[in-house]
Amino acid sequence: MTTSRQYGADAPLLLTPGPLTTAAPVRSAMLRDWGSREADFIALTTRLREKLLAVAGQPTGYAAIPLQGSGTFAVEAMIATFVPGGGKVLVLVNGSYGRRMVDMARRLGRTVSVLEVGEDTPVDPARVDDALARDKAITDVAAVHVETTSGLLNPIDGIAAAVAGRGRRLLIDAMSAFGALACYPDRMNASAIAASSNKCLEGVPGVGIVIAAEDALRTSAGHCPSLSLDLCDQWRGFEQNGQWRFTPPVQVVAALDTALDLLADEGGPPARLARYSETARIIRSGLEGLGLRPFLAPDHQAPIIITFHPLEDRSFSLIDFHDRLLDAGFAIYPGKITTTPTFRVGCIGQVFPTDARRFVRAVETILRAGKRKG
Amino acid sequence: MTTSRQYGADAPLLLTPGPLTTAAPVRSAMLRDWGSREADFIALTTRLREKLLAVAGQPTGYAAIPLQGSGTFAVEAMIATFVPGGGKVLVLVNGSYGRRMVDMARRLGRTVSVLEVGEDTPVDPARVDDALARDKAITDVAAVHVETTSGLLNPIDGIAAAVAGRGRRLLIDAMSAFGALACYPDRMNASAIAASSNKCLEGVPGVGIVIAAEDALRTSAGHCPSLSLDLCDQWRGFEQNGQWRFTPPVQVVAALDTALDLLADEGGPPARLARYSETARIIRSGLEGLGLRPFLAPDHQAPIIITFHPLEDRSFSLIDFHDRLLDAGFAIYPGKITTTPTFRVGCIGQVFPTDARRFVRAVETILRAGKRKG
Repeated sequence: MTTSRQYGADAPLLLTPGPLTTAAPVRSAMLRDWGSREADFIALTTRLREKLLAVAGQPTGYAAIPLQGSGTFAVEAMIATFVPGGGKVLVLVNGSYGRRMVDMARRLGRTVSVLEVGEDTPVDPARVDDALARDKAITDVAAVHVETTSGLLNPIDGIAAAVAGRGRRLLIDAMSAFGALACYPDRMNASAIAASSNKCLEGVPGVGIVIAAEDALRTSAGHCPSLSLDLCDQWRGFEQNGQWRFTPPVQVVAALDTALDLLADEGGPPARLARYSETARIIRSGLEGLGLRPFLAPDHQAPIIITFHPLEDRSFSLIDFHDRLLDAGFAIYPGKITTTPTFRVGCIGQVFPTDARRFVRAVETILRAGKRKG
Repeated sequence: MTTSRQYGADAPLLLTPGPLTTAAPVRSAMLRDWGSREADFIALTTRLREKLLAVAGQPTGYAAIPLQGSGTFAVEAMIATFVPGGGKVLVLVNGSYGRRMVDMARRLGRTVSVLEVGEDTPVDPARVDDALARDKAITDVAAVHVETTSGLLNPIDGIAAAVAGRGRRLLIDAMSAFGALACYPDRMNASAIAASSNKCLEGVPGVGIVIAAEDALRTSAGHCPSLSLDLCDQWRGFEQNGQWRFTPPVQVVAALDTALDLLADEGGPPARLARYSETARIIRSGLEGLGLRPFLAPDHQAPIIITFHPLEDRSFSLIDFHDRLLDAGFAIYPGKITTTPTFRVGCIGQVFPTDARRFVRAVETILRAGKRKG
């Protein structure tokens, strides 16, 4: 299976939160030009939207709305379209992507309330319930399913139950979940979930995705101050004539269509989650065995990206470690969680357990060489 | 030269305003995955921004800012970033893209004044001067260089002189001009011009481009209500560490980098304009010879896209004409200019004079068959 990857002799295996290493057929799907208003591309868009709904568990009364741009564009479009001008949104924060939603909502002129916990701590649904009970002005709750900052898994079902129990709208940033983790907007009573072509769906980057309730879309007309980011308008465009309002990235769309076929071939989100889980297990336990301490407790870890503390050894340089791994053919993410220096290893994309084992061996070799030198 | 195109046996030649038929090396550049925060992709982004400035005539004090999304996203980002909250923008309208800027600016809460003329009529710089003289509240003027609706060429240098003479900011939608027509922001004293990866630059769609004056960027902080569309933030991101703020469509970016090399190889914008002009001349005169009347007077016609009236013959069906041309391997745009049914034939992308001659012959064959039938 790994042989279908063929990412090029000079391209490293991307163990990052995206862009990812994709399958060769996904990239080959980009070798054609398409007229975006011709019947064949309209048919492609229609089946793409149907396949996206299938990944979302075939929810009744929901529509899949692809949007030009990165995942961040889709998250902002979701907030701008669904939170009304006079609304108040409670944003649940335990990482950069939660904080980014706070920034977006404030710039858009929405009133914002923030429930923030530590970056290693899941949001407690009881605290969400409490916040909603105390503040009747809150119309919407924005939550992150998997915080890509750390790899933290939030208890999204519990959060969803708390929000539904208090009768508020729920908007979910499902960027690092959709396509692998169970993420069914109807069962969570979510008005919308935002995702991307390039995370667990394993397409190439360039298209954001929102799966939204049609009744929420119908009442959202006129909320969004941006023409480009208006999901209600984008949805109406698709419904009217099957076309994108504005020029779509046709090659990226074709690649996503192929990526969704490969997801189905693999066995759908549950099979993909099983692969990611095995890969994540090998990486986490392998690096732990080499003395690298994971940032998150095992129970809070999503099998998407794993954050590690650097070695507590003054001779250990994160930049040097990154560069040596790159020489060995692996790209990781050096970075930091607020104040703590860490590095992150992604488990998504065309990464298989054999790759994970090769990666652990490469880390071992680098750490041993470092020790010999020191 | 046309043999490098190889757009696939089943893909028609796209005689549309985009997506376009691209060169094979442009599409092949998408066969690699890139880590967007790795040194090689940062270097790619840096040289891409330099190449874009070269296309803009190497203006001093300007920066090239690529943005995720379609060209419309870039135009909206330009308006949202440069027209301040309390500003008033005069939009020059003679087609859909001018009207779209009116819609964008109004939704963004900017005060808008509209100078509208017929879709076959260039904007008169004297009328712009007059409008600015009469209304001192106007802070910005938004103009379209080539109206993709019809193919109309506006006298952008005269408009620019009028705006500069009255000391207002100038924002140009140069979507269907940049890469072929002379479009030098410094000589026009423009604060910004917006373009796309997929028009005369002949990349694939998925990236918008704004070339902006750095002093205008510096004073624009805080104007844009959208985080995703804030060009000031996007620019600061590039300047700080060479990276895109949010995940870029890496394959689309790599394709654009290759497309810019091909533009330079062809001889830059003047050579490309010469090719488009010859192609446009063959199509316009060829179809005129077959009794199809162009919508625009020759003096107002840009060699980008040509609008024709359908045959004044009740047996002529635009949909049938489009479908027969598609069977013959050519995709055109059936559509209408406000109230008049027309069809449009694009001259941009990997379209060469030999293709234009083949196209004219195909039209001739279809019209003759129609006459025989009727």
